[in-house]
Amino acid sequence: MSDEANSPVTGGQAPPRRRNKNRHASNVAHAAQFSQLPWQALQNPYKPIEILYDEQLEKIHLASLQILEEVGMDILDAEARALMASAGADVRPGSNRVRFGREVIMAHLASVPEQFTLHARNPAHHLQIGKQFLSFGTVASTPNASSLDGGRRAGNQQDYRDFLRLAQSLNIIHFTGGYPVEPVDLHASIRHLDCLADCVTLTDKVFHAYSLGRQRNRDALEIVRIGRGISAEQLEQEPSLFTIINSSSPLRLDQPMLQGIMEMSARNQVVMLTPFTLAGAMAPVTLAGALAQQNAEALAGIAFTQMVRPGAPAVYGGFTSNVDMKSGAPAFGTPEYVKAAHISGQLARRYRIPFRSSNVCAANAVDAQAAYESTMSLWGAVMGGSNFVMHAAGWLEGGLCASFEKLMIDADLLQMMAVYLQGVVVDEASLAMEAIRDVGPGGHYFGTAHTMARYKEAFYAPMISDWRNFESWQEAGSPTALDHAHRLYKQVLQDYQPPPLEPAIREELDAFVARRKQEGGVATDF
Amino acid sequence: MSDEANSPVTGGQAPPRRRNKNRHASNVAHAAQFSQLPWQALQNPYKPIEILYDEQLEKIHLASLQILEEVGMDILDAEARALMASAGADVRPGSNRVRFGREVIMAHLASVPEQFTLHARNPAHHLQIGKQFLSFGTVASTPNASSLDGGRRAGNQQDYRDFLRLAQSLNIIHFTGGYPVEPVDLHASIRHLDCLADCVTLTDKVFHAYSLGRQRNRDALEIVRIGRGISAEQLEQEPSLFTIINSSSPLRLDQPMLQGIMEMSARNQVVMLTPFTLAGAMAPVTLAGALAQQNAEALAGIAFTQMVRPGAPAVYGGFTSNVDMKSGAPAFGTPEYVKAAHISGQLARRYRIPFRSSNVCAANAVDAQAAYESTMSLWGAVMGGSNFVMHAAGWLEGGLCASFEKLMIDADLLQMMAVYLQGVVVDEASLAMEAIRDVGPGGHYFGTAHTMARYKEAFYAPMISDWRNFESWQEAGSPTALDHAHRLYKQVLQDYQPPPLEPAIREELDAFVARRKQEGGVATDF
Repeated sequence: MSDEANSPVTGGQAPPRRRNKNRHASNVAHAAQFSQLPWQALQNPYKPIEILYDEQLEKIHLASLQILEEVGMDILDAEARALMASAGADVRPGSNRVRFGREVIMAHLASVPEQFTLHARNPAHHLQIGKQFLSFGTVASTPNASSLDGGRRAGNQQDYRDFLRLAQSLNIIHFTGGYPVEPVDLHASIRHLDCLADCVTLTDKVFHAYSLGRQRNRDALEIVRIGRGISAEQLEQEPSLFTIINSSSPLRLDQPMLQGIMEMSARNQVVMLTPFTLAGAMAPVTLAGALAQQNAEALAGIAFTQMVRPGAPAVYGGFTSNVDMKSGAPAFGTPEYVKAAHISGQLARRYRIPFRSSNVCAANAVDAQAAYESTMSLWGAVMGGSNFVMHAAGWLEGGLCASFEKLMIDADLLQMMAVYLQGVVVDEASLAMEAIRDVGPGGHYFGTAHTMARYKEAFYAPMISDWRNFESWQEAGSPTALDHAHRLYKQVLQDYQPPPLEPAIREELDAFVARRKQEGGVATDF
Repeated sequence: MSDEANSPVTGGQAPPRRRNKNRHASNVAHAAQFSQLPWQALQNPYKPIEILYDEQLEKIHLASLQILEEVGMDILDAEARALMASAGADVRPGSNRVRFGREVIMAHLASVPEQFTLHARNPAHHLQIGKQFLSFGTVASTPNASSLDGGRRAGNQQDYRDFLRLAQSLNIIHFTGGYPVEPVDLHASIRHLDCLADCVTLTDKVFHAYSLGRQRNRDALEIVRIGRGISAEQLEQEPSLFTIINSSSPLRLDQPMLQGIMEMSARNQVVMLTPFTLAGAMAPVTLAGALAQQNAEALAGIAFTQMVRPGAPAVYGGFTSNVDMKSGAPAFGTPEYVKAAHISGQLARRYRIPFRSSNVCAANAVDAQAAYESTMSLWGAVMGGSNFVMHAAGWLEGGLCASFEKLMIDADLLQMMAVYLQGVVVDEASLAMEAIRDVGPGGHYFGTAHTMARYKEAFYAPMISDWRNFESWQEAGSPTALDHAHRLYKQVLQDYQPPPLEPAIREELDAFVARRKQEGGVATDF
């Protein structure tokens, strides 16, 4: 009898199905212990999905150049405008508006490195950015945190630190993408000092600096230098810090962002230029138009990094999504979002610039919606050829909340994508001719030599997914993915070990933070 | 200021975010009304993901031919063996074992049509199967049904009929893939008569016949003929019924399956050959080996359809997944599953045979796990170049339960995939140059002429996803995707209208079913 379509049809009651016979351990408790994939530099061996023909892509490219030539951008910093003027842009006295000829843009894009190393404090955690390489980061910049036991609360230092501990402990998380949650219990004038020091002490992975005024960038550069125990000269040779630069769509770069580019690119650090182009709100309601605008903003910002310092590492960020036209609310993980991610990847590859995307959703709960929107986003990113996935774990509510449970579920999803990207071995041993011959028609492969030699490592073993049969699952209290994620994040936090840090570095770091706090941190205008 | 990375960093509390200003209708109740995409024949314009190189694919192809030549298959029907012998297979007296030379297999595969029409009772619901065409069907063959209010229960006729009503009402569901749930309250001897008559009266879409003995196939053929109001001759010209044939892996075809092929192919109806090759259980623990075995079984079965009747429509079914090696439980939506789906598509295209895949998961609840496993499966199917997706809506518990809520969530996902497959228009109007010029730096696109002319149709409007902000969502009682799905399926059932059916056809159908019941239906051996 067959297994899939017909086995129920054997009588007046549901029959035993063959697979149940083989559920040797169906009554064994769901593995409570935490196991994960080892740290690995991911590479995507597959050809990215390309949904636009070359001619269509070229039209978007040309439209974005036309936007920069004819409309231009508002550049809200005089020093930046002066730099642009000397690089050949059309800057007029008394106006913020800057127009860029296409030859100016294209000439500057040519010096962006196609691949570079982003250095971590722990050399084992250096990242390759570009080409086929792929890195995943935590959610960033949410004002709220949530967990199953604590509910939803305003961001605070304890949650912030717990997210860093999870980021450090989970091998599939390659970097922290910013503050996973904003610790608003720390005063804004000194928040960056405490937060960045935590990135050095609680993790040894790559981290991010916000561009919110020159002084914050400079403090971040000093903290990452101290953390790595290197000289300023070596830091300038080795990109070790990245900043996300959002254009203020449509077509504007604000002063802190421009200063961020100038501070970071001048020191050869990484600028990721990400327009926040929500189609129907800050960008045209059509995807082609929104992407033309995204591309214009991204190209102008990336070209500016090269005006500051030719060869400075820069990344093309795509964040185009749509709004719900009934309410104006942003939507994520939509079909439009996925298409925009794919096309953004095509555009970035056209310029041979590394590509950044995101794993995002609009759901308010860690439910089926959160999972399918995130999985859609992730496919958009990974098979769009992304090199750097921001918000890859923990994002909820369109970025207004970081969820501890969502982070664990996402981490499981990221591991699944990592295994998906491993390809398939096809050789004599894996084709299993001998085993097939030995087992023959009507047999089974449990316990055969071919199986026994491989079963432990043969398949991905998930952290969250519960594969028990219904009865065993029900006996165990019918735990959902949310329940498993909650248990698991608590366990990972409990098992957390801070990465080693030389006492001299710790001392220098503490002294720097103390001094800068004494100086008052940075001025706040509120 | 920027929108994504930095806006929270403005002071001691979470600031209002720009997008909130634009949530004009954020307090409006979540739209209660049901709207969906129109019926459409889906086409996939994108190049499928191909994860094996040609040489690797060829190795799997050659291994499967070697399996068929050297090991062969157990063919548990004498008439089938005789047919195979006269088609050139190596059949020996007194043995069920049949070996197939590669030239025999390849010669017969050549006559399988690359594309064909599968006819429905309603001509608007005919399906194109093959090439770039894509159709989605309901879950099938589960012994249990579940809903939020009724819990999990054994399959029964009322649930069976409700699933058919949903299948009829949801435009994104192109066919019913079998009995969505097995109505075990109907005696097995006459169950197929009632169930198939329901397919004709409650839906006007394509449906499936189980191959569980010749007589059931013959009854199904007569019922579909009556339903379409055509002659036996016309039915033979127009494929109107399909059957899933599962090989009994490893390497065996049971008598009812062989009889099903002979009955269906002889009448030019559609046979979908789907080995149920769970790596590590009924197939080698390695994906390459499991796929070589899947391919051997599929090719032998498909070749047999052509031995019965050259040119009869046949479909290549891929269902390879892995088991959890700790428990033997089958796993679905895993990275291995997705890779197997992609490779199965590559194999099917190598032979120019339409490809069938599935949307499956192992979750016991309609939670995040169900959603991410299903979304993974669906990407495996759709971007694996599938033409026919079984179990596309409603599958839970590895196929042991059909969930009403999961069906609605899946339908939303299927609609998302449909919009994803629409591509992107890139022309002068969509590039929005004029709108971008008019709005200029720092403006917004709400209410512009370009937006107003397009906003109603610009983006996918989901059935399930809740995009309200957290506060509005919480005020509404914090409904999850499961809650929305529950409300929606009840509403769709309430709004259900049976499709028109000519009284003469209804009369003929009723008379046939009554007569066959009087005759005792089919013999059951239990």
